[in-house]
Amino acid sequence: MTGFDPGDLLAVAREEALIGKAEGGIPIGAALFTIDGELLGRGRNRRVQDGDPSMHAETAAFRDAGRRRHYRDTVMVTTLSPCWYCSGLVRQFAIPHVVIGEARTFSGGHDWLAGHGTRITILDDPACVEAMTEFIAERPDLWFEDIGQ
Amino acid sequence: MTGFDPGDLLAVAREEALIGKAEGGIPIGAALFTIDGELLGRGRNRRVQDGDPSMHAETAAFRDAGRRRHYRDTVMVTTLSPCWYCSGLVRQFAIPHVVIGEARTFSGGHDWLAGHGTRITILDDPACVEAMTEFIAERPDLWFEDIGQ
Repeated sequence: MTGFDPGDLLAVAREEALIGKAEGGIPIGAALFTIDGELLGRGRNRRVQDGDPSMHAETAAFRDAGRRRHYRDTVMVTTLSPCWYCSGLVRQFAIPHVVIGEARTFSGGHDWLAGHGTRITILDDPACVEAMTEFIAERPDLWFEDIGQ
Repeated sequence: MTGFDPGDLLAVAREEALIGKAEGGIPIGAALFTIDGELLGRGRNRRVQDGDPSMHAETAAFRDAGRRRHYRDTVMVTTLSPCWYCSGLVRQFAIPHVVIGEARTFSGGHDWLAGHGTRITILDDPACVEAMTEFIAERPDLWFEDIGQ
């Protein structure tokens, strides 16, 4: 048993995504929690805000959590299926569980992670789908830049 | 034909690694070039210096290069085989060529990248092997923290 509700975790990631949207950025948010529900770090995509292409939401949350000896008691939550870059982060640092808002508008490496033993929970959250659908329609240039396509 | 010598590119990554070592950091360096040999960004692992676990050498070089619309004319050089995190970066942004100083002391995702069409050049550079061998022997705690093991 773990001490969190996936929807509560997603609420924090969605809040980050909304802040990012208000800043004119890419509306993807993430957070890192312990499996007991303690918040370790949170963040949002910072490509626009910092001119930094290396800060996807997941890497921003990971950075915000600071240095840790291991991640075996953590869960990453993100509003969108993690791209290969962020999936690589999860695999390298052996984050055991990823909670995903939605994987309809973009599907990254979550199946690959599942195949390597990561627990994947996809919530298929309508608000997450709507936010990304709207963003991709409004700013396709920015979206495709962010995923290198 | 491309306009660079892999050894010249590695010299820049090695210089970054040496600066990192002098700073008390993890001695891994990387740089992003165009295939014509123009330097776009360079960096080194910044876990110790910035307390930032998200800044591996490759992600630091990628960040230093700033925002780009695509990476199809670039080559990443790194002193050490890229971990899964950095391999994911290369795959997501479709960096077509990775030049690696050595893959003896650590082997990350370079075979996976090769299987997905990335050109991989391993130089098996004795100075890179020696620097990492020495670092891992001196600071195993820091090394295993950096790769999440």
